[in-house]
Amino acid sequence: VTIRESDLLRHIAARSRAMPAHVRIGPGDDCALVTLPGDTLATTDQLVEGRHFHPDWPIDLIARNAVGRSVSDIAAMGGAPTCALATGALRAGFEHADELFDAMARWARHWHCPLVGGDIAVVDGPTVLTVTILGAPHATRAAVTRSGAHAGDAVYITGAVGKAKAANWKHPVEPRIDEGAWLCDTLGDRLHAMIDLSDGLGRDAARIAEASGVRIEIDGDAVPLAQGVADWRAAAGAGDDYELCFCAAGDVPPVAPSAVPVTRIGRVVEGSGCTIAGADAANLGWDHTDR
Amino acid sequence: VTIRESDLLRHIAARSRAMPAHVRIGPGDDCALVTLPGDTLATTDQLVEGRHFHPDWPIDLIARNAVGRSVSDIAAMGGAPTCALATGALRAGFEHADELFDAMARWARHWHCPLVGGDIAVVDGPTVLTVTILGAPHATRAAVTRSGAHAGDAVYITGAVGKAKAANWKHPVEPRIDEGAWLCDTLGDRLHAMIDLSDGLGRDAARIAEASGVRIEIDGDAVPLAQGVADWRAAAGAGDDYELCFCAAGDVPPVAPSAVPVTRIGRVVEGSGCTIAGADAANLGWDHTDR
Repeated sequence: VTIRESDLLRHIAARSRAMPAHVRIGPGDDCALVTLPGDTLATTDQLVEGRHFHPDWPIDLIARNAVGRSVSDIAAMGGAPTCALATGALRAGFEHADELFDAMARWARHWHCPLVGGDIAVVDGPTVLTVTILGAPHATRAAVTRSGAHAGDAVYITGAVGKAKAANWKHPVEPRIDEGAWLCDTLGDRLHAMIDLSDGLGRDAARIAEASGVRIEIDGDAVPLAQGVADWRAAAGAGDDYELCFCAAGDVPPVAPSAVPVTRIGRVVEGSGCTIAGADAANLGWDHTDR
Repeated sequence: VTIRESDLLRHIAARSRAMPAHVRIGPGDDCALVTLPGDTLATTDQLVEGRHFHPDWPIDLIARNAVGRSVSDIAAMGGAPTCALATGALRAGFEHADELFDAMARWARHWHCPLVGGDIAVVDGPTVLTVTILGAPHATRAAVTRSGAHAGDAVYITGAVGKAKAANWKHPVEPRIDEGAWLCDTLGDRLHAMIDLSDGLGRDAARIAEASGVRIEIDGDAVPLAQGVADWRAAAGAGDDYELCFCAAGDVPPVAPSAVPVTRIGRVVEGSGCTIAGADAANLGWDHTDR
């Protein structure tokens, strides 16, 4: 099957006629035109065949995870997704391009960020999907960075870790958009720093510590584990959980309105680095090149 | 050489400290935060090794063309680039990742759209660079689409066609940002439709005709040719020129303040399709899958 890129792009444009009001010009012109709040969040991420997904996975799961990974970055700032752009460098002979882009468009709409632009190329190599998401920061809290943690804060996590690993990474990404917004609503300026867990609790919590110039100490036994995960050490080193890890002062409710639990797992102190049960956590996370 | 993605992303962040005021949060957090005009242009495009560039090209040229292709889409709407996000899926063993991202950041700054986010992965296959550009539409003309051409308009082109082909595609992209803005300034609402020439004059002019519901007739002998191009037929079928093709009513100055010439090459009439010297032009352009 020869993929004609121009036909595919036409296909995307044809599927994209019904757009929300903030999309002034959708796919099919040189650019999209979108009406955004003046302050805009922007993030981009890649999903690579053989690394982040396998070609025998359902197309819908591949599409979901391609879009969801980037949506999760918006959630990590406490923001709301507003629009998406997606490109595919598709392995020559890949026969599901229409289905894949339809599914990406569907997941983008699901997370309130309609697909407003894209591009398709064919490559003699693994498929690479790249998704850019724009978003609006929370209206009152503004954007939550990694760099605001203070000594004295407690460290929390939504949901459980190790889900993707327990499923051998064939696991649907569920970005915590509602939970991130709810934390901004509920905690306001007491929500000091936040990150989403893409590379493992150990490595990602260490990133908050580094960006904030503080030390984070995580109590291994307090880390909530996904079903099928034996212990915190396995879970904390596993990536692709897309839970939110955050540092806050004062009381934090133990469960979000979405029913996702929020668990206190540690504390922020003066110093540097990140430990789990006293061990250096920075090396527990995985680097995508290590797989 | 093993590429550690986390080291590379750190490298990007470290190189990105000095940002213009509209970049509130630059690379290094989950998202960038940028202050934009409410109406924002957005486009994304890919540069694929073996298709759009060859690995023995200078890194600076590869970087320039990766960023320039997307910037050209902003120019085609008459807009001004404001920020960029770039990802690289780099062929395993590629040794110039730092240099490549430094060069992309430099070209992004050159075109006034600082690189505010990115991602790097390693693939067992050709390198794929994906660049998303956000931009501001022209302040008074607003965004110029492909769909506004009217019967009675004349058709124009900036510069000359066939440059990239004459150089066997080893040719630096020069997006016509200043010229696009100047056309908006000068022509205002008389500038009815515009596109940038990425896939060849024939195919791209046909896209204006299709989007506008009109017929475009191009005079082959009027098409300005780059040095080394024998005739309009070769030039009009060649891609990667990144000149602006536009339809306008009334007088158009023959040269932009940048000294780039503006040439009248045809007319818009009622009907459908696009011809060059009477021949169907739609099939002259190239589809990226055909190469």
